[in-house]
Order: sequence, then structure tokens, then C-alpha cells
Amino acid sequence: MPADPMSTALLPAGLHDVLPNEASHEADTVERLLAEFAGLGYQRVKPPLVEFEDSLLSGSGAAMAQQTFRLMDPLSQRMMAVRADITPQIARIATTRLKNEPRPVRLCYAGQVLRVKGSQLRQERQFTQVGVELIGPLQPEADAEVILLAVQALEAVGVPHLSVDLCVPTMVSRICRGLGLGEEETRHLRAALDRKDAAGVAAVGGPAAPLLQTLMAASGPAGRAMQALGALALPEAAETDRRRLTETLRLLRAAKPDLTVTIDLVEHRGFEYQTGLSFTLFSRDASGELGQGGRYRAGARPDAEEDGEPSTGFTLYMDTLLRVVPATQAARRVFVPHGTDWAVAGKLRAEGWVTVAGLSPAADPVAEARRLQCGHRLADGSVQPVD
Amino acid sequence: MPADPMSTALLPAGLHDVLPNEASHEADTVERLLAEFAGLGYQRVKPPLVEFEDSLLSGSGAAMAQQTFRLMDPLSQRMMAVRADITPQIARIATTRLKNEPRPVRLCYAGQVLRVKGSQLRQERQFTQVGVELIGPLQPEADAEVILLAVQALEAVGVPHLSVDLCVPTMVSRICRGLGLGEEETRHLRAALDRKDAAGVAAVGGPAAPLLQTLMAASGPAGRAMQALGALALPEAAETDRRRLTETLRLLRAAKPDLTVTIDLVEHRGFEYQTGLSFTLFSRDASGELGQGGRYRAGARPDAEEDGEPSTGFTLYMDTLLRVVPATQAARRVFVPHGTDWAVAGKLRAEGWVTVAGLSPAADPVAEARRLQCGHRLADGSVQPVD
Repeated sequence: MPADPMSTALLPAGLHDVLPNEASHEADTVERLLAEFAGLGYQRVKPPLVEFEDSLLSGSGAAMAQQTFRLMDPLSQRMMAVRADITPQIARIATTRLKNEPRPVRLCYAGQVLRVKGSQLRQERQFTQVGVELIGPLQPEADAEVILLAVQALEAVGVPHLSVDLCVPTMVSRICRGLGLGEEETRHLRAALDRKDAAGVAAVGGPAAPLLQTLMAASGPAGRAMQALGALALPEAAETDRRRLTETLRLLRAAKPDLTVTIDLVEHRGFEYQTGLSFTLFSRDASGELGQGGRYRAGARPDAEEDGEPSTGFTLYMDTLLRVVPATQAARRVFVPHGTDWAVAGKLRAEGWVTVAGLSPAADPVAEARRLQCGHRLADGSVQPVD
Repeated sequence: MPADPMSTALLPAGLHDVLPNEASHEADTVERLLAEFAGLGYQRVKPPLVEFEDSLLSGSGAAMAQQTFRLMDPLSQRMMAVRADITPQIARIATTRLKNEPRPVRLCYAGQVLRVKGSQLRQERQFTQVGVELIGPLQPEADAEVILLAVQALEAVGVPHLSVDLCVPTMVSRICRGLGLGEEETRHLRAALDRKDAAGVAAVGGPAAPLLQTLMAASGPAGRAMQALGALALPEAAETDRRRLTETLRLLRAAKPDLTVTIDLVEHRGFEYQTGLSFTLFSRDASGELGQGGRYRAGARPDAEEDGEPSTGFTLYMDTLLRVVPATQAARRVFVPHGTDWAVAGKLRAEGWVTVAGLSPAADPVAEARRLQCGHRLADGSVQPVD
């Protein structure tokens, strides 16, 4: 939605009114996505907009602390926080209220989140967040399921030319640790990798440099990347990551041979809280990411890698998404003149018309139909075009 | 949703997680209601959760000032407010961003609101608000349209035994003014009427007492109430209210002869911001009100009765409503064992099944299907019951 001057004057920056057509387009798209999730047994939950701060910002929620509005609760005299991300709420629900449900737990959600500041890329401060979480299973089958579900849901709402970029954000740090690099060296190396700076990697990579340069160069189409990765001698700690990536890719190809998959073997940014195989969803027609997901541990304390339940999931970014989802055909509006029986208009609605009633007699019903943006009108008992 | 001890411990009072089944029941119901609104040309809009305080709490929004959470906006250094009511936002959109759209403007919405405290009756502090606004028209046809739309939408989601209670909250004050009562006397009289205290009305009503006692006694089934009202000599100022009520009732009966309509001729509480014909929706099966609506002036300054645009609309209370909306039949879950082709499961989904995939081989597929709450499983290429 482009910000118009009037909206800018009335509303705080990054907050806007979604007007007719756009609002129903968004709501329809959200419900169609959720219907796809439901088809694979993902059950909808709806956490509240506000929670106690210490609950909302614990574990993986801590990442959003700077972006979270606080509210004092007059009832409990405790600080509350307005959610800036729904994912930690779903993990909380799964690991507390649904802790006795059989594993894996499959959950999905759609809702609004609020952030203190927009980013340079995204000025918005309120987002519609839509996603799924699959809590409990360790198997690559779980990684494949959520990726395939994301792809299927995006295809179902009409997003063209999809591709999935896989990464394993833990692999680089495991390689570095396996080769005996210190924390400081690893941080420098990360910065060089984030810049895709091969010379920098060579300069600060020490014993890991050759391996990481190969990984960096091999990133791209899945076939080539996996061939390069397969030929490398990796430290034992990174073996699990390679095996999971290989197996997930095999499952994706078996299920959907025509899916475009790329692999970034050194990706890390934006996945700081992921604990294993992760992915980003793109469309050739969209300018940014459509969504992102990956492994994490639900209910884990910060920095306790083996804590919590193994989980994966994804979040779709509705703002980017809606720019590439084709609008569903708007229902046709028929002007129903003043005095028309309620039941007669009801019959038209049952046939798929939107009936726009005249609330007083109109001297020129054709002009009145046009004024009310109706392409048709009811006259002499039948629907007639007004153009 | 009953509060369980765990939820109480984790979340602030009046805020809760909506869990599987309940959450999809709510979302489905909301979308079905909005589809009914769309059928009569009501277009969906989606205002933000947060606005500048002075915008959100101006005009009719001022009523919610005590119930509204404030947030400081770090970008503008101005105070923002989290909406406690969506209605003023829709009026703002209609009278500013959509001010050049042809009248009447028909808008609808669904969204979350947050309140500082729950009431004794409703402990919840977050509500799902769903409703419509019809902005621009003065005619009783507009009053009838929104009432009939509310009834039709509630019937469409399966609410049984509906009734509508009409009132004209301006009538008593117009009668009092017409008969020369002062502000103080009118206030005492209001209190007596609110208590349905006929002796009190006699004691403080002065010249208005006989008229108001008759109105109080006549409240009830529409036919009897209108007969009593028709026989009264009203001050000129109250004549418009009587005419509008009579005409609206005639339109309701013509459209829907079997609708149960009652009339409260002295009702006032809960309609402090209404400027004319108002209504409350009930079901014999529900313990509270399902929704409420009525006349107001969109974009009016407080206490400027003739300011703004004549409007009407209603809000449905989803918490009460969901208790009487029958759950839609849950889709049947079929367990799809590990290794099943993605396409095979997709075919089952196309037939209406929810497919729950096994993520690893199961020694006893029947037991595994049961554990995952599936009534069926895929075996030997066909769907089989597991019980």
C-alpha cells in the first residue's frame, strides 16, 4: 500500500490503513494459506497481542527485545509487552499448554505484530505474520515437510516462479570449532563471509580458510553446491549438518522434482536464532523474501543448545507476498433499486452477486448504479448491464 | 474459553491463548460473517492496531479513553494509543481517506482490540471485534438494512432463535426537553428509568412522568409497544424518533415477517454515544448480547449533535457469539505413513482429507494413527478406518 499524504498526516510513521480491495485481498490470501496448512494437519492457534514481558521476551523471543513496545499492567503491576513476533508465542503454547499433546505438534497462526521501529528496507511497524511450527521431530522429513508446505501454500495463492534457498547457519561455526578457531577469529571470518569477501576469508580464516572459500564458491544451484560439499573433508561436528542437508534435498527432489533449489553454504545473517537447516522463499517476480524458516529449539533457554524441543517452521511476509499474489476476481456489483424485496436481493446474492441497495428512490437508476460503482442493475425483474 | 490454571499463571488476567479447534472456529466464523457483509457491498478495511492518541480518542473515540493503553512513539515523540474499539477508526477512514467516495459508504471490519481492564461481566481484555458501518444516509432504509444484515449474518453462521431489541436512546431526553425539564431533573429521571423504577419516575418526572411511565410499561413485543407509542401525544422534538422507529419496524416486518422484534422505549444505558435508532441482538440460547449497533454521526466533534455524517452500523461480540455458533464439522484426519509420495497425500487432500504424515517409520501404523488422533490411515493404497 503506498503511503498517501493524508495517511501520513493522520497516522504514525509505519502504520497505515488498509483500504477496500487491498484489505479483502489480504484477508482472503491469509485464509487460503491457512487452509493449505490445515490440509496437512497444522492446527490454528491464536495467542494474545500482549503478554508479560518476561514471558514474551524469554528464549528466542529475546531477539526482539529492542523492537518491542512495553505496557504497564494496572492489574498485576507487572510490565507487559506487545508482541513483535508470533513465533515465540507458538513455541510457548506448544511447550506449556500443549505439552501433553502427542508429538509432533503441528500448529499454524495468522496475526498482527507491532514493532518499535521499521527497518531501512521495511518502514512498516505493523505486520501480518502467517506461519507454521512443527514441534517435536528431529528427522529431515520434518524439514522437507515444512519447506514443501510453504511452497505448496504459496503456489495455491498463485505466487509464480518460486525458489527455495537452503542454508545451514550452524555449519560454519561447527567447522571453525572443529578446526580449533577461537571466538574472535570466527567472528572476523563471519564478517568476511557475510561480505562474500574471498580475500578477507583467506586473510582471517587460518586453517578454515580453504574449506570456507570452497563452500563460498560452491553456493548456488543445489546440484553443484552438493557436489562440491560432498567432495570436502569436513570436521566431524559439521557432518550432521551435511547429512541433514543431503537428505532434506533428496526428499524435496523426490516430492517436487521441478522445484528450484539453491544452497548457500555460508549463509548466517538473519538466522542467528536458528539451530540447523534453514531456508528462505523467493519468487522471481518479488523484490524481497517471501518468507523464512528453519530449525530451532522450542522452549529453550538462551545459549542452551541442547535445551528445549527440536522444532522447525516458517513465517511468511505478507507485505512482500501480497505484491505477487494475483487478486481474486471481485464479485460483480448489481444495483438493487429502492423498494426491492429483501428476498429478491437475497436470491441474487445466492447467485454470486454483490447487491448494492438504493436507500431512497433514484430519478435515474442507471446513473445511480454507475455512481455506486455497479456494473449492473436490477430492472424489470432481471439483471441488466449499465454500460 | 475457560481459563485453566496454567494459562492464568503465564498470561496477564483477561488475556488468553485460543487453542486448536477454538481458534479455527473463531476464524471461520469471522470470515463467514464478513462474507455476508460483502454480499451487500460492505467493503473490508483494516485500520492499524495503534494510532496517535489525539486521533484515536477524538469524537466518539473519547468514550474509551479510560480503557485505552498508551504507548510513546519514539519516532514522533508523540503519544500513541492501542485501539480499544475499531468503530471510531472506521468513521475516521470514511470521513478522511474515503471522503471522496460516493455516499453511502459501506464498510466492514474484523480485528483485535485491547482494553486496560475487563468489566465484571467480561473479564477479557482482548476482543475480536467484527462489524459494519454504513456512512452517509439518513433514511430508515439504512437502519433497516444494517439490522437485517446483522440478522442474516448471524443466521448464516447458525445462531438460533434470534431477536432484535430496538430502542431510541434520544427519545427520553427529547421528551424531557420538550416538556421543559432541566438537566438535573432529567438525570434523576434517567436513573429511575434505568432501574425500571416506576415509583421513582413518578416522584422525579414532573410533567414528563405520565408519558414516561406509559413508555416504560409499553416496552416489550414490538406490536404492543408501537400501539402504545402511537396513542401518545409526544412533544414535537420526539416526533422524528417515533416516525423513524415506526418506519424502520415496517421495513423489518416487510423483509422478514418472522423476526422477533422487541422495543424498549426508555433504554439508554450503553447507547450514550448513539444519536438515534439503536438495537441489540440476542439469541434465546446465548446468555448475553450478541451485538449492538445504531445511529451516530461519523467524524462529529463531541457534543456537536449536527456535526459529522449521519451513520449507522453494528458490532458483534465474538466471545458471546462463538458460544452459540455450532462448530463446523472438522475435516477427517488420515494418517499417511512414512515414505508416502507427496503427490499421493496431495490427492487425498484434494478429496477433502487432512493428511497427517508419519515422519519416520512406525512399527504399528494403526497405533501410530490413533496416537496422532487420526480416525483413518492410508494402507495398501486406500483409506481405511483405524477403529
